[in-house]
Amino acid sequence: MKIGLDMMGGDFAPAEAVKGAVAFLSENNNDIQIVMFGNKPIIETELSKFNFSEHRYTIIHTSQVIEMHEHPTKALKEKQDSSIAVGFKMLASGEIDAFISAGNTGAMMVGALFSIKTIEGVIRPTIGAYVPREDGSLGLLLDVGLNADCKPENLNQFAILGSLFASQILKIENPKVGLVNLGEEEGKGNLLAQAAYPLLKENKQINFIGNIEGRDILINKADVMICDGFTGNVVLKLAESIYDIVKRRNINDEHFNRFNFEAYGGVPVLGVSKPVIIGHGISGENAFKNMINIACKMIETELTGKIKSSFIGI
Amino acid sequence: MKIGLDMMGGDFAPAEAVKGAVAFLSENNNDIQIVMFGNKPIIETELSKFNFSEHRYTIIHTSQVIEMHEHPTKALKEKQDSSIAVGFKMLASGEIDAFISAGNTGAMMVGALFSIKTIEGVIRPTIGAYVPREDGSLGLLLDVGLNADCKPENLNQFAILGSLFASQILKIENPKVGLVNLGEEEGKGNLLAQAAYPLLKENKQINFIGNIEGRDILINKADVMICDGFTGNVVLKLAESIYDIVKRRNINDEHFNRFNFEAYGGVPVLGVSKPVIIGHGISGENAFKNMINIACKMIETELTGKIKSSFIGI
Repeated sequence: MKIGLDMMGGDFAPAEAVKGAVAFLSENNNDIQIVMFGNKPIIETELSKFNFSEHRYTIIHTSQVIEMHEHPTKALKEKQDSSIAVGFKMLASGEIDAFISAGNTGAMMVGALFSIKTIEGVIRPTIGAYVPREDGSLGLLLDVGLNADCKPENLNQFAILGSLFASQILKIENPKVGLVNLGEEEGKGNLLAQAAYPLLKENKQINFIGNIEGRDILINKADVMICDGFTGNVVLKLAESIYDIVKRRNINDEHFNRFNFEAYGGVPVLGVSKPVIIGHGISGENAFKNMINIACKMIETELTGKIKSSFIGI
Repeated sequence: MKIGLDMMGGDFAPAEAVKGAVAFLSENNNDIQIVMFGNKPIIETELSKFNFSEHRYTIIHTSQVIEMHEHPTKALKEKQDSSIAVGFKMLASGEIDAFISAGNTGAMMVGALFSIKTIEGVIRPTIGAYVPREDGSLGLLLDVGLNADCKPENLNQFAILGSLFASQILKIENPKVGLVNLGEEEGKGNLLAQAAYPLLKENKQINFIGNIEGRDILINKADVMICDGFTGNVVLKLAESIYDIVKRRNINDEHFNRFNFEAYGGVPVLGVSKPVIIGHGISGENAFKNMINIACKMIETELTGKIKSSFIGI
């Protein structure tokens, strides 16, 4: 199993990516190789601070870096020897089994859509976010910004993608799917939610429990919470800001400490044909380690293959 | 000045409405009369527990009550002698200057739209909610559910309505208006936000500061935060749920204690021709007192007249 890792992505590149990779390797067995993309001398300098076996990783030297604020399509086209461009080439050719980056989100998306493509039947891939619940478990909210405007069928597909992720990766049996809405009763909502409801209700691939309201997002009512990417993005960033407020106010609470979204690493792009994980720019050691872990679980559980099967005939 | 108060609305009717009215009257001068709508013997029994001058209030006996889950239009039509129906009749005829209820929200909205009507030029009235900020001030988020689907022009009008409320009632000078969006840069957003941005930018009646993200809602970045009623409702209920979580976890923090939205009472329906305030069903003494206070401020500042002037020629 070969996990590709962009060492040049994120605010603390490559130091935190190196730390995360080392932490992962020290906790896991020999079957998993990490393929590092980036400036080889710099990565080697960082790696030399740690003492571990060289046969656990490979460094693919790349001479360019796509910066955080570059235009995605333009940057990918012009920087063919960037860590992101080379990573996707090797993912497409099968030389690596998954690709992870905390770099330019747009470039990662464009790379995913054009090099490895969307799974047949999936109209639009989606990105979700974990939601910490008071009982210690994690829920999944999606979409959180990839699809600002959605059609009812998009939401219905997000429900399938999210349910598979929740059951395979979060190990939630028969995950409950809730439609984020402004009221509980069927028939409530904006036009999108009203039209998505019957599709979700009739969808035999998911365990739809109906509408959930804003007050239900942080409790264990639904495991997979579906909404358009505009609403999801606002909700996610609001929830992220609660952690900042809690820290500023010196509140030390086990539950609110779990609002440190950075710790979870990234959530995969669901609906593309191979495992791709996009991390937060501020990802640290733990986030990188978690992303590598999620990539491994995606490969082990054959999540992408299961998604493909679910969309056959759709 | 005569403030109409529905005594039969809310989960604790009429006891909490009576307490709120008594608390208000004991703190305010003789110029303000409260006109109470509801079952006279029951209200009198509640009032008899307190010792205060009878000339400060009038009771208008009504024989019917619109329950919380009744169909608004049907209930208003069939229950002509309900506290809400009679209240709106007297508001329309000028016998009272404002009308407040913590009862059936739908019936209050239908009553407002059909008995006192929308201000000329206003496409859709809106309801906002206060947002507590860490510096102790209050912001205003609108719409929070009255308009699930919005057009760009609706958002532009909400900005005018919210700015007038913020400057007149919250006493915020030249309130900063932010468009709730998934990114800061101009051009970001769903189709609605993208189309609303230029309207807000060109609107000379407001102080538009640009897009704000979910993480900015709970800080003092914009005073008036504009979004469609779907997004606003999800955000409001999520924020309300934070208070519940904080209480469950025995966290006692001055800032998070202000997330007890119930304490603020209701926010007026902005854009209708007379002051109408709809309270939360769980409104208690303090909420009722605050609603009466807001109604007084609306009358004193002639907010409705100022809104009318702003919409002349629109």
